[in-house]
Amino acid sequence: MLKTACIHPEIMAVLSRCGHGDKILIADGNYPLESKSGDAAKVYLGLTSGTPEVTEVLKVLAQVVNFEKAEVMMPDGEQPPIFDEFRSILGGMELSGLERFQFYEACCQPNVRLAISTGEKRTFANILLTINVA
Amino acid sequence: MLKTACIHPEIMAVLSRCGHGDKILIADGNYPLESKSGDAAKVYLGLTSGTPEVTEVLKVLAQVVNFEKAEVMMPDGEQPPIFDEFRSILGGMELSGLERFQFYEACCQPNVRLAISTGEKRTFANILLTINVA
Amino acid sequence: MLKTACIHPEIMAVLSRCGHGDKILIADGNYPLESKSGDAAKVYLGLTSGTPEVTEVLKVLAQVVNFEKAEVMMPDGEQPPIFDEFRSILGGMELSGLERFQFYEACCQPNVRLAISTGEKRTFANILLTINVA
Amino acid sequence: MLKTACIHPEIMAVLSRCGHGDKILIADGNYPLESKSGDAAKVYLGLTSGTPEVTEVLKVLAQVVNFEKAEVMMPDGEQPPIFDEFRSILGGMELSGLERFQFYEACCQPNVRLAISTGEKRTFANILLTINVA
Amino acid sequence: MLKTACIHPEIMAVLSRCGHGDKILIADGNYPLESKSGDAAKVYLGLTSGTPEVTEVLKVLAQVVNFEKAEVMMPDGEQPPIFDEFRSILGGMELSGLERFQFYEACCQPNVRLAISTGEKRTFANILLTINVA
Amino acid sequence: MLKTACIHPEIMAVLSRCGHGDKILIADGNYPLESKSGDAAKVYLGLTSGTPEVTEVLKVLAQVVNFEKAEVMMPDGEQPPIFDEFRSILGGMELSGLERFQFYEACCQPNVRLAISTGEKRTFANILLTINVA
Amino acid sequence: MLKTACIHPEIMAVLSRCGHGDKILIADGNYPLESKSGDAAKVYLGLTSGTPEVTEVLKVLAQVVNFEKAEVMMPDGEQPPIFDEFRSILGGMELSGLERFQFYEACCQPNVRLAISTGEKRTFANILLTINVA
Amino acid sequence: MLKTACIHPEIMAVLSRCGHGDKILIADGNYPLESKSGDAAKVYLGLTSGTPEVTEVLKVLAQVVNFEKAEVMMPDGEQPPIFDEFRSILGGMELSGLERFQFYEACCQPNVRLAISTGEKRTFANILLTINVA
Amino acid sequence: MLKTACIHPEIMAVLSRCGHGDKILIADGNYPLESKSGDAAKVYLGLTSGTPEVTEVLKVLAQVVNFEKAEVMMPDGEQPPIFDEFRSILGGMELSGLERFQFYEACCQPNVRLAISTGEKRTFANILLTINVA
Amino acid sequence: MLKTACIHPEIMAVLSRCGHGDKILIADGNYPLESKSGDAAKVYLGLTSGTPEVTEVLKVLAQVVNFEKAEVMMPDGEQPPIFDEFRSILGGMELSGLERFQFYEACCQPNVRLAISTGEKRTFANILLTINVA
Repeated sequence: MLKTACIHPEIMAVLSRCGHGDKILIADGNYPLESKSGDAAKVYLGLTSGTPEVTEVLKVLAQVVNFEKAEVMMPDGEQPPIFDEFRSILGGMELSGLERFQFYEACCQPNVRLAISTGEKRTFANILLTINVA
Repeated sequence: MLKTACIHPEIMAVLSRCGHGDKILIADGNYPLESKSGDAAKVYLGLTSGTPEVTEVLKVLAQVVNFEKAEVMMPDGEQPPIFDEFRSILGGMELSGLERFQFYEACCQPNVRLAISTGEKRTFANILLTINVA
Repeated sequence: MLKTACIHPEIMAVLSRCGHGDKILIADGNYPLESKSGDAAKVYLGLTSGTPEVTEVLKVLAQVVNFEKAEVMMPDGEQPPIFDEFRSILGGMELSGLERFQFYEACCQPNVRLAISTGEKRTFANILLTINVA
Repeated sequence: MLKTACIHPEIMAVLSRCGHGDKILIADGNYPLESKSGDAAKVYLGLTSGTPEVTEVLKVLAQVVNFEKAEVMMPDGEQPPIFDEFRSILGGMELSGLERFQFYEACCQPNVRLAISTGEKRTFANILLTINVA
Repeated sequence: MLKTACIHPEIMAVLSRCGHGDKILIADGNYPLESKSGDAAKVYLGLTSGTPEVTEVLKVLAQVVNFEKAEVMMPDGEQPPIFDEFRSILGGMELSGLERFQFYEACCQPNVRLAISTGEKRTFANILLTINVA
Repeated sequence: MLKTACIHPEIMAVLSRCGHGDKILIADGNYPLESKSGDAAKVYLGLTSGTPEVTEVLKVLAQVVNFEKAEVMMPDGEQPPIFDEFRSILGGMELSGLERFQFYEACCQPNVRLAISTGEKRTFANILLTINVA
Repeated sequence: MLKTACIHPEIMAVLSRCGHGDKILIADGNYPLESKSGDAAKVYLGLTSGTPEVTEVLKVLAQVVNFEKAEVMMPDGEQPPIFDEFRSILGGMELSGLERFQFYEACCQPNVRLAISTGEKRTFANILLTINVA
Repeated sequence: MLKTACIHPEIMAVLSRCGHGDKILIADGNYPLESKSGDAAKVYLGLTSGTPEVTEVLKVLAQVVNFEKAEVMMPDGEQPPIFDEFRSILGGMELSGLERFQFYEACCQPNVRLAISTGEKRTFANILLTINVA
Repeated sequence: MLKTACIHPEIMAVLSRCGHGDKILIADGNYPLESKSGDAAKVYLGLTSGTPEVTEVLKVLAQVVNFEKAEVMMPDGEQPPIFDEFRSILGGMELSGLERFQFYEACCQPNVRLAISTGEKRTFANILLTINVA
Repeated sequence: MLKTACIHPEIMAVLSRCGHGDKILIADGNYPLESKSGDAAKVYLGLTSGTPEVTEVLKVLAQVVNFEKAEVMMPDGEQPPIFDEFRSILGGMELSGLERFQFYEACCQPNVRLAISTGEKRTFANILLTINVA
């Protein structure tokens, strides 16, 4: 087992090939990952409905790469509670809101290198992160 | 997302090709999965040290296939507490104890079809399950 | 054998990678699956003319994923009896009718993830289903 | 759709490469096909528990190739009713009985070219067929 | 050996995946099959100049699938004798004539699933067939 | 189309990689090519029962490579008429006779580089040729 | 070793799949073969600077296929001496001259099936040949 | 070990397939190589932050191929010190400056055959080289 | 770029799949890696003779995994100076000495998962490391 | 084009992965390379009977790697003239003679990494070289 914060083989393999400006999607269990993450490498972590959550994954990734931007799928009404968790894990970083189909489109761009599917069942629990220099 | 108890693509893909007498290994994060699971399909669920645990995975699998036998790597001294958790999840099934290198050898047999690596950090937390008829 | 309603390996493997808005085609034996289902994974269940029927497959799939929409190839004249079977299996869901070449085009879209060929010999016995959240 | 009795692509692809003395296994849904059919091409027809049956498949195959021998896994006690169905479909051919592990071993020989998994749930419902000249 | 009229593995494998409206090209030995048959599966039967002829292949294929249309490359002057052979084998079906480069273009469409090269040395001996329902 | 005597792509590709002592099998339509030609490259020329014959293929191959030996599967009784055809095509070369299972074994040796299946329906119509220097 | 004039496996494999109108490039050692020969099969014969020459290769190819056209990269000033060698080998055929970037573009067309790199160090020593019927 | 100046297998493999006008990128450790080097072969040399440097790699490559042009990503303000190192290694060659996104675009062109990632941590330490004739 | 001590993609990808008892070889530039590292994943870091050294690589790896044992190829006479460097980097760990062909044999065992080739030109500069639990 | 003595891509790719004790075969045009060079990478340089010769290839290879041993297939009678050429190119190195089948066996050992086929038509013109340190 690696001594680094993240130990997952496929995630480490892809992150080690990422650079400044590349993007990573962490998606909930109902997100259509195959259709809506372009040519990104796809990693499935979801074991059963609810496990693991998107926030668990985000906490781990933030320890092995730096992020400079975070985009979320924004509901019409008030922001869901998970957005505060996102901001907290990312050290207070502001979240850029995109409408549902804009978010899908952003996730299909060629610089999205990694798309991680979880078992998360809360709604609007998808986050698209941009990697910063190390 | 599937409505079944287990939603993981690779796990479901392999389990659906298993039959009576095939075996499945759920291993802790330090288990040498590539070297000691023969030709089994390998699935990595371990995200960070401690997550997920072997028992979380076992609970989910027991809902989609039937098991007729469970083998564990047995320490020289007293049994670790995780063994009671294993028995409880498996409805009281007895555990067959194997010495460390016997266990490795059992995990390399051709009827071991699936080997799942977790982030489990407790010791002696590996279990080799035999599938029953459905 | 899995304890879930559907036991087919390729079907379970693909469904477990589908999400909200992905589509699945169940086609009759004369449907040109290779030419008219885009990049969807293709599964051939047809053994001989007449076996299995599209409706048998639909009944099984409806137990492991939720559907939010169903599209059919609509004849010029009156609706074929199989449409009533479709509605019944889908709990009374309305069917969206498409003209033949519109139907082909819908089946070639990138969100069609799975295309299942049967031995069905009744005419107009093709159905394109959209997956709902679980 | 082919005009021949069997329309299944993988089955026809493999059968057309078989010759005198090659063997074909048709197995029930609990048979461990991956572990116990050697290097044979594997085709999964099982959709749900019980569908299709081994006998349905046998009837179709007997129309496109000739068989000279049939081996079955023999129970200790009296013969199961499905054996009479086998004999009837094969024009009265005698069945060669093998003990369970002998049968597995026979199914792993290199001349077994095709192994078909069904949804059959009756017990002792496996048959290993030897192809004759056409 | 199969008991069906056609015994060729690749041809049977592709035909069993064709449906209504898919097309098949049978070409002479000088036809540029790699460049002018799009993504069709390519089968080379030509052994030496003159063997086999396009008409031999056509006779066999007509026994395992139904055709609804036949297109040929039409010379400027009078029709070559092989056209009468084509009509005769196809039960009197009319031939649709295309100019040389129109014919090439038709053979590169995505619904052309199979392209068979022969050793045929007669000129204008190419035929593009459309599959009908079975 | 090549100007050489043999125009078949796979056959020419393999023959051009053969050297002194390598062997080539030309087999009838009922020969179990996949099981009984070891790791040889396999080429299927058989279109329908009876076409092409083994002798047609032999005539073509003899024009592009030299042979120094020919082995046949020898019946218990008198020699079949096709043996005289073999000798005649090979310029009077003597045929080495092997018993059925010896012949199979010879065809599975690693120096057998090419195995060609025909539609030949005559019995004992298999020939194993050893390449000479050019 | 083949008895034909050309014995090179990859070259023979590709030429045997070429037909009327397909093209072949023979290029010097500095030609950017990977970038400027489209999807053509690439064969590297260059061993060291100067060996082999383009003309050696041309002489061999002209014995196994017929050519109907030859295109060269034309310098601004007077024609290089190698052009006379080209004409002589091709039986006096006229050479079609193309400007450097036109030549590159012609070499990237889909009907260019084979691109052979040599060790040729003379300048303007590239030739693009069109195959005729055999 | 090769006796040539460069001993790296993938680098030598790709360079030996390059010709006049092909390009090579040597990039720093934060460069998004997967996203911004098109279809170039990708070689990762970076071991840890700072090792090796881009200039070490450049010195080695300049001994096995000739370069005719060098492009760099140009900062808005004054030129970084590494540019002088580049000029010195390349024998005083002038550097062509490109704006950041122009540089990315140049690195994604089809004639970029090789992209080498290093551990270089200095900024603006990327160089795109054009190969000359040898 | 990763924030971890090691940033090399292939090295991180393989290390993240290693467990207790798996082994890693770091070899000098003349070591026959393809022949003498069994089925280990092979990574080539050697750029030119002398760069990088084995000790540079060892220092980086020791930061991301724990080692419990180190084996070296032992000369007949006195120990080379690099052995002291090895001990120092490994916190004083003792080195197990093997004779040349014993060392080769140890490097070909199935639990050797990773073999890294460097440009190291010092003699006896190979080290085989066993991974400990994290 | 590389500035090194050898410019052939596959040869350079394989040689750069060779080390001390690995072997390379350069064979004449009638040598059965596929059958008698084990798992070595195979490179075909033979264009036509007689071109290129084994000695041409040997001269080039000797410039990019060092050799410590040379083995040849030894005739029963007197040594062929090509042996003197071999010695001369290798700086007077002695040749180790092997009987024909011993030579084949030596060429099939796992440390034979590269096998090059030429158009050489002289007899006993095969040489097996062992690489030395650089």
